[in-house]
Amino acid sequence: MKIGFTGAGLDRADALRLDEARLAELAAHSDALLLRLSGFDPELDADGRLVWERLSGTEAGEALIFLGLRGDLPLFAPLVRGEAGRPAWSISALLDRMHAEDAAIWGGARTLLEWHGRHLFCGRCGSLTRAFRGGWGRSCPNCGLEHFPRVDPVVIMLAEYGGRVLLGRQPRYPPGRYSALAGFLEPGESIEEAVARELFEEAGIVVGEVRYVASQPWPFPGQLMIACIASALSDRVTLDMNELEDAFWVDRAGVAAALCAAPDAPFLAPPDYAIANTLLRHWVGGEDERLAQPGRAA
Amino acid sequence: MKIGFTGAGLDRADALRLDEARLAELAAHSDALLLRLSGFDPELDADGRLVWERLSGTEAGEALIFLGLRGDLPLFAPLVRGEAGRPAWSISALLDRMHAEDAAIWGGARTLLEWHGRHLFCGRCGSLTRAFRGGWGRSCPNCGLEHFPRVDPVVIMLAEYGGRVLLGRQPRYPPGRYSALAGFLEPGESIEEAVARELFEEAGIVVGEVRYVASQPWPFPGQLMIACIASALSDRVTLDMNELEDAFWVDRAGVAAALCAAPDAPFLAPPDYAIANTLLRHWVGGEDERLAQPGRAA
Repeated sequence: MKIGFTGAGLDRADALRLDEARLAELAAHSDALLLRLSGFDPELDADGRLVWERLSGTEAGEALIFLGLRGDLPLFAPLVRGEAGRPAWSISALLDRMHAEDAAIWGGARTLLEWHGRHLFCGRCGSLTRAFRGGWGRSCPNCGLEHFPRVDPVVIMLAEYGGRVLLGRQPRYPPGRYSALAGFLEPGESIEEAVARELFEEAGIVVGEVRYVASQPWPFPGQLMIACIASALSDRVTLDMNELEDAFWVDRAGVAAALCAAPDAPFLAPPDYAIANTLLRHWVGGEDERLAQPGRAA
Repeated sequence: MKIGFTGAGLDRADALRLDEARLAELAAHSDALLLRLSGFDPELDADGRLVWERLSGTEAGEALIFLGLRGDLPLFAPLVRGEAGRPAWSISALLDRMHAEDAAIWGGARTLLEWHGRHLFCGRCGSLTRAFRGGWGRSCPNCGLEHFPRVDPVVIMLAEYGGRVLLGRQPRYPPGRYSALAGFLEPGESIEEAVARELFEEAGIVVGEVRYVASQPWPFPGQLMIACIASALSDRVTLDMNELEDAFWVDRAGVAAALCAAPDAPFLAPPDYAIANTLLRHWVGGEDERLAQPGRAA
């Protein structure tokens, strides 16, 4: 089963990140490629593929992020400064066109770019930091603190009760869209505790068993989406109207209809690059299906 | 099965964090309790329990972290400034004495404290930030950026092949200790991809299926440990000597001996508050055992 933003198929070659001489050599390599970006967004060719250009060799090492190797080919992204600001419909239009491995490569780069822009100064002493490790960190020349890219774990889950699952609707969703409930995991809790807390906070649902299903990086700006199914102890819902404007229980037939966009579907399914879609497909298919296997990493 | 640093049993009452008037009321409540700390470390009573003292009411709202409610009782931690610096043996001596729910409460507070100390200044503009949301965030008065506590996902895993699992040894471990391999999940990868990458980088192991087992918050300073078992495609190991000084394959009898500290055990098991211990217990017990269920959160 396809999971959005996974399957980049690159060797991250992280051992090279600390080897500045070797990184400079790779950047000077005649085959080295630079990802073409417009702000944080990718430029796509007519086939919806990422556009790569030759590295001129004049780019300074510090202004590049080393993405890794594709075979022998070193891939870089420009360390541009900026702020993200695309509206959601545009991200969606972009992602509908992109190939899976390209979305994964760009997603990782995008997370790094946004992280750099928010970590120009040292949080401990306030000094200007500088990028190091091929763009996979920043260090403070004043106090010496090293800063590493941030990934925020988010739990996203279906509460299940009597053959139905709970879907919710946030005000910002497009008309008809319902999706799995979700929230940031906090310091001091496990995945299972975060799932139980979020379902209780947002919908008043008390859960028993929590089952992990799959995970996905989400580059807006840098979440790790952790998808679970939780057995609810009752189907009585108390909605937190600050989080959700509506929620309802739906059976497998209803989810299946939504996933194939049937005209009589009870809701509009989340897009296929979102793990809420993967989670719903998994639930409709039953528990036996194998999900989320890498197999590409080596 | 017990999992370290979980089961705090508090209602985090996160909706109250943004309600400054209500938080001030709670802090002024005659039953409000303040966690007694020495730097980032807990003070323990003769029974190994956390020490709580009455909130005097003179503490300023900004100098407190609102931990949540135990029943009706509001619990706070002091927002102390400082740096962590305990050697590993001391943490271990501390944790061996602590009750599970106390370790969970203290762990969450410790992660927040260390995060505050590293985020005094805004990473985007360099201005001094101030704590808000009852200590669950910092905001920048200059550029308006809001900063939230950081949790770093780490994958920790057993590669499995022919009824044996791979354990490794880092130079900093106490004599005889072997444990599961582990590494930080990076931007742009799923849990399953991170497991595959780390096993390949550290031990040259190519994996097929990856199975999630359990998770744990780890407060040194703020990781989310995500424990998995990965099917290796071969038992040939190529060690990255920068990460590990040794590794070996061990069968269920060997792991069982280590877990009960038998004199002839082939290695010293990781401590029971570490999820590597949970992972080994799970593997020895077979796949049927139910792990990691919350049930306390509501």
